[in-house]
Parts: sequence; C-alpha cells; structure tokens
Amino acid sequence: MAAVHERIAARTLTPGSRLPSIREFAQCLGVSKSTVVEAYERLRADGVIQSRPGAGYYVSAPLAPLSLSRTEPCRDRDIDPLWITRQSLDAAHDTLKPGCGWMPPSWMPEASLRRALRKVARSTGNALADYAPAQGLAPLRELLSHRLANISINTAAADILLTESGTQAIDLMCRCLLENGDTVLVDDPCYFNFHALLKAHGAHVISVPYTATGPDISLFENALKTHRPRLYITNSGVHNPTGATLSTDTALRVVKLAEQYDLRIVEDDIFTDFEQSPAVRLAALDGLQRVCLIGSFSKTISASIRCGFIAAPASWVEELLDLKIATSFGSGNLAAHITLAILKDGAYRKHVESLRQRLSDQRIRVAQRLATMNILPWLTPQAGLYLWCQLPNGIDAAAVARKALADHVVLAPGNAFSLSHDFSDFMRFNVTQTHDETVYQVLEAAMSDTPQNEKAQ
Amino acid sequence: MAAVHERIAARTLTPGSRLPSIREFAQCLGVSKSTVVEAYERLRADGVIQSRPGAGYYVSAPLAPLSLSRTEPCRDRDIDPLWITRQSLDAAHDTLKPGCGWMPPSWMPEASLRRALRKVARSTGNALADYAPAQGLAPLRELLSHRLANISINTAAADILLTESGTQAIDLMCRCLLENGDTVLVDDPCYFNFHALLKAHGAHVISVPYTATGPDISLFENALKTHRPRLYITNSGVHNPTGATLSTDTALRVVKLAEQYDLRIVEDDIFTDFEQSPAVRLAALDGLQRVCLIGSFSKTISASIRCGFIAAPASWVEELLDLKIATSFGSGNLAAHITLAILKDGAYRKHVESLRQRLSDQRIRVAQRLATMNILPWLTPQAGLYLWCQLPNGIDAAAVARKALADHVVLAPGNAFSLSHDFSDFMRFNVTQTHDETVYQVLEAAMSDTPQNEKAQ
Repeated sequence: MAAVHERIAARTLTPGSRLPSIREFAQCLGVSKSTVVEAYERLRADGVIQSRPGAGYYVSAPLAPLSLSRTEPCRDRDIDPLWITRQSLDAAHDTLKPGCGWMPPSWMPEASLRRALRKVARSTGNALADYAPAQGLAPLRELLSHRLANISINTAAADILLTESGTQAIDLMCRCLLENGDTVLVDDPCYFNFHALLKAHGAHVISVPYTATGPDISLFENALKTHRPRLYITNSGVHNPTGATLSTDTALRVVKLAEQYDLRIVEDDIFTDFEQSPAVRLAALDGLQRVCLIGSFSKTISASIRCGFIAAPASWVEELLDLKIATSFGSGNLAAHITLAILKDGAYRKHVESLRQRLSDQRIRVAQRLATMNILPWLTPQAGLYLWCQLPNGIDAAAVARKALADHVVLAPGNAFSLSHDFSDFMRFNVTQTHDETVYQVLEAAMSDTPQNEKAQ
Repeated sequence: MAAVHERIAARTLTPGSRLPSIREFAQCLGVSKSTVVEAYERLRADGVIQSRPGAGYYVSAPLAPLSLSRTEPCRDRDIDPLWITRQSLDAAHDTLKPGCGWMPPSWMPEASLRRALRKVARSTGNALADYAPAQGLAPLRELLSHRLANISINTAAADILLTESGTQAIDLMCRCLLENGDTVLVDDPCYFNFHALLKAHGAHVISVPYTATGPDISLFENALKTHRPRLYITNSGVHNPTGATLSTDTALRVVKLAEQYDLRIVEDDIFTDFEQSPAVRLAALDGLQRVCLIGSFSKTISASIRCGFIAAPASWVEELLDLKIATSFGSGNLAAHITLAILKDGAYRKHVESLRQRLSDQRIRVAQRLATMNILPWLTPQAGLYLWCQLPNGIDAAAVARKALADHVVLAPGNAFSLSHDFSDFMRFNVTQTHDETVYQVLEAAMSDTPQNEKAQ
C-alpha cells in the first residue's frame, strides 16, 4: 500500500494510469501475490484505486484535494445561540468543555452500549438492514409507554412517534404547529437551541422570566393575553439551564392558561433518568390534549446513537407521521433496537442509580469550588448536570468565554440562553465537564482580565 | 415474573401497591431469593414495577393502556405520494412489496453489517457515546471525498456534510434554499417523496417530462423561462422511477441553462453503487457551483443505519451547518462509524459487485415474466432496482393497486410519481421484491377485475 501511495505522490502513477499487474508487482517488491492482492483490495476500499473487470487496476481519477477537514470551529463569530454548540461539538481533543451540554464518554454506560451492539450484531430479524415501521420500532414504543406511565403520562404506544433525536422531534412539532411569523413563547433563560430552531422557523419569539418553580405565572398570563402565542416550548423535569423544578401549583396554572388562551405546549423532557424523584409534567396534568412531550436518550444513554420520541395528542399523530416520512423517511431502526436493548438491560438501571448519586456529589463539589471564586449558583438544583451561576461584580460572561476559548476552555455565557439578554453575568456549568483544575485557573485568569461593571439592569 | 404479572392482571396487585418483600416472595413461591431479585429487576427494567430506596418495590402507577400499536396502515386514504411509503413501511410480515423502493434484507450485506457492529462494539474512542463533530465524522467525509472523485466530483472533506439520511439532506437543502411559495422544478415522473417533501415546504411545484436521456430539454428551457424556478430536484445515476440514465449532452445543457436562469439544483444520487459504469453527474459538470449532490447508503448498505451526506458548494456549508445543528443537532456518530467500517470492508466491495450482476439477471427475469401479461417496460435500465412499466389497455394502476393491497401485495401506481398525472396506467416494479409468483397471480386477478380504458390523453 505504501509503495502505491509513494508512486502516486511522486507522480510515477498519475490519475487514470494502470497499476502494475499483481504478478509483476509481487515480483518487483519481492512479496507474495496474495500480499499484493490484499493491498490492492484495501486501496480500492479506500477509493485510491479502481478495478475494471478483466483490465486490471487503475489509479482513481481525478483525486480530490487532500485537504484536512476543518478541525477547529470558526472563532470569530458572534456568541449567538449556536456558538456554544459549535465550539463544543468541534472542540479539539484537549479542550475542556464546562460549557458543553452533555457528559463526557467516561460518564456514559459504555458496558451496556457494547453489550447492546453485540446483541444487535447477532440478531436475525430486520434490525440490521431494514427500515423500521413508520412510527418506529413497536416494542420500544411499548416500553416508552410504560416508562411514561411512571411520570403519570398515560399514552398508548400507538400515540408515540420515534424520531432521530429530541431536537428533530421538536423541529417536527414546530413544522406541524407553526406557520411563518407565528408567535412562540419560551422561558428566559431557556435552552439556547430553542432560539436557533425558532429562528429557522421564522417564528416571532417572546419570553417570560423563569423562576425557581417555573415561569413567572402573572407575566406568563400577560404574555398570553397580549401576544396570543401559538406555542410554548419549555423544559420539564430538570430545567435547562437553571436546574429549576416546576412546581405542581405553577404547572396547573400553566395548563389552565394554555386551555384558556388556546396555547399548545412542547415539553422537552430529556433529563428524566437524572431525577431522584420525578417532578410534575405539564403533559401529565393536561392529559396530552394540547401538550406533547419530547424525549431522547442522548444525555443518559448515548449521544452517538440518535433516538428521540414524541408522545403526542392522538389527533396529531397522523399529520406528524406524514411529515416525518416526507422530511426524514424512516427513523433509525438500528438506533431504536440498541436503545431498547439498553433500557431492558438491568445493568443500565444500576448505572443510572449510581449516576444520580455521582451527579449529586459532583454538583456539591463544583458549587463549592466556584464559590471560592465568588461564582454563585442561582439555586441548588435537585438533579441534573447544570449549575446556573452568577459571576461576581457584573463581569461580562461573553468576554470571559472568548478569552477562555483562546486557552482551550469552552464556557457557556448566560445571554446565549436569553432573549432579554438580562444574563450577561451568568454562566451555565456542566458539573461532569468541570472536574479539571485547569478550568478554574483559566476562568480565574479570564475573569481578572475582564473589566468589572455594575450589572446592567 | 409470571407470578407478578398474574397478580396485576387479577388486580391482587393494583397500581401503587407494594410487592411482597424479596424474602417473603421467595418463601411463598419456593424459589431462591436471587431468583426473585432477578425477576424484580427485570420487571423494573420493563417499567412494570418501581423501587423506592429502603421501601421496597411497588407496582408502577398508573399503567398505560396496553393497546397494541397500529400494526397496519390505514387503507382508505387517497393514493397520494405518501401512500406507497406508508404501505411499504408498515406492511405486515407476509405482505409482498413489489411497489416498495428498497431491497429485502436478504439482498443486503448482512455479514459486513455484523462485522462492523462488532468492530464498533470493541472500539475505545468516542464512537459509542459521544456526538460527532458538527459536520460529521471526519474519516468518513475523507472517504466520501475519494468516492466522489470516482464520479468526477472534486470536493474536499471540508465541504461534505453528513446528515441522518438522504431525505433529511434534501430537506436541509430545501430549508436553506427555499422560501415559502418559491417555485421548484421536478421531473415527470419523479421519486414520489419529492412531492411530499415539497408540499411540506409550501413550494409551488412544476414538472417537465423525463425522457430516456434526461429531462426534455426544450420543455426544460421553457419552464425556466416562464416560471423562473428557484430549484430543480432530480435523481442522477439511476433515475427513479424510470431507470433512465442522464446523457452527457443533456446534462451539459441542463447545467448551462441553470447558470443562465440562476437555477440551483439538488442532485439526489443514492444508487451510485448499483451502477456498472458511472453515468455523468450534474454536480461534476457544474463543479459544485450551483449543484449540490446528495447521497446515502440506505439502498446499498442498510436502511436501518441512518447516514446520508451533502456535497455542497463551499459557500453554502456554514449556513447548512447552522441549520443542521438547529434542527437536528449532531448527525449520527454511531451510524457514521458503522458506515465507514463497511465502506472499508473488502467484503462489501465484493458484495456490491455480485449484487450488480444479480440485479441485472433479476431485471431480465422480471421483465420477461411481466411481458407474458403484456406489462411492458418503458425502457431497459442499465442499472438499479426498478422497471417502469405500462399496463395493457390503459388499465388504471391505482385501482389495481387498491385491489392488490386487499390481497397483501403493495404496488406502486404511476400517478403517485407524477405531477401531471399522465401515468395512470404505469407502475414501478422493484425487481428484488418481485420474485414470488403470488405477485403475478394477484396482479393478474386485480387487472382482470379492473375495467379497461382507452388511455386518457
């Protein structure tokens, strides 16, 4: 293989030219014919050479430019809602990512993942090569229906739709419910990708401050009265980025107001396995009338296997299904089989239980360390990955994040989560990505290098 | 486990009630405590029971209705572009599917798939649990860049974007290029899901007749002149449903007209591994200026693993990437790793070579059998799965398809592929799904039961 690569590099072999026959090349190099056959086959699998039946092997022509792919994201773009995601996804291997939204692989259930992959590799049905049914693998939807019953959501497998991811599920719901220019309500702060997604939909976005127990309910009512939004998108279970837990009282009022003002709700519920005891869900109180619940497993099982779902009001299912087929055809059958195998694996359950404890310990540890720098959490979350923290003296978090990035640390500045931009001195920390002392050193340096301001409003 | 299920069914154990302790239950059933522990753990993994630390096991409450999922698709809907897909995806196990767009699992490279899954199960990097980079797994993009060079498309890995599927790739391109109400040009006939997708985008769709060598070029020019479409979506390599091959002459004129009338083109190229010798690609002639090429592996590797890609003009990549993150976050990392392993597997190459021969033989065999019923192909395809055939005496294909469905045979009537609805007596046959003599018997019976008409037009 090296000999061929050398000749191509040296232009002894140019694109389109014929390679030596297997016998000639074996003699020339003093190796066996089978060695050459294997090398040629590998080069062919790599696309470097091609064979023409009965005519031998040729250098593939013309060769694509051998540029490396972009290994680092563009650094000079504005800190918009996509900034943190792009930096986190494309970070170099040695980058620390306390601003990233997910756990490092070492916190994930790798043993269960390997077992599930081997199980599917042995399977004889249609898991390996065929499409799933249009709604997605039936036994997984049955299992999800049982899991949802545990958070008091009663839905049949027939009203659950599997998707490629939680994000795709929200996107499908938006396509189903929104027309260009419709008004959508979000929390302030909220998961930043809601902003990116709603921008793609051309929606008019408004926000209501989020409190420790849910949206500020009187401002929520005002917003419904004044702007008549078509849709409210929110996190339940564990709120992103605040770590707040919706109270039953607030949830009841949200559901009642939604009915009064003909509001639909997408409840993004991707942290359910992190909860010690399940919080109230809007979809449970509403009985899946005007609330749909979105789930996925990218935060608890694997972000590599794409699998999400929608538990939707029954009357929405047919339209969602048509839209899903039109825009992404089938959902991942392999991903669904692997997810099902893991959810049924007792070891995964044990992993989740120890994970909750580990997260709880780590939240305390990180909060204590941040407190030594006067970085204080807005509240103490009951579950999850995140600490939503305020920097001291009104320091501009975006400026700190830019500086830290130069030192290979990805941070999540507050205003990326906020429509009002009232969170310039806030940051979200992912406690599973904040174990390294370097994070604190870089943060300290970046903060001391940033002018202090009285907090604007 | 059976004992617990029985008690729940008999309402001896009701939702929320506590299960016997492990010791009690072991004594009561005369089994070991570890047997009960294992049964409880499995019931818990299934979501039937829950544990509360220190307080024992409880029946999960309330249980979801145990309805079966919808196993059969709705049969009475109109034969619209989604009809064939819904019937094919949700067909019962014993249904024959000559109208379906893909091969049965027995034609797929199952050995390579198993090997790739086991390989990834052993891997130690981030393949198991982490997101891929925003653009998708770099080594797969490198390999695709080499493969594309073989069809004369010169693009760097940096300008290739991995997606969840070919369909999602086309959808992303439409979101990027279209605004509501824009005019889009398609072939007549064309792949029916283009119609479903463009409907979801609120596009104004026009069509131009497809000939044996590409679109009818004078009508194509007229359409550009008159309607100024923003986008043309077409298949290259092997045209779906006709099996036609674009000629270089026609391709050159299409590319030239696209430049003249400021038309963008999405070239859907998912059958490339079926070709004996590669046909011309619009993206190759255009040099990826205003043509993007879409690919996927669902027809040749696996429909279960979702992996597609876009080779796009460099200036489109950043916007596509933002849109991809906003609407589906990362693309499947696991799917990309498995696809890469298979493409590098010499056995897969051999599979594809023998597949081409097998397809060629099967096209001849099916065409001969259909000819005995006076069902004649519009042309003899050089490659691929499909025969686009005309029924005798103007028989209405949709009526035949409805009757055949009652006998568990899914057919693909011509007008589902056509905006003009000029193909009422046409059908697309997938030769890999038309091996069973029952197909011909059901078809014969359905045809003889359908009134013959002079063809409209």
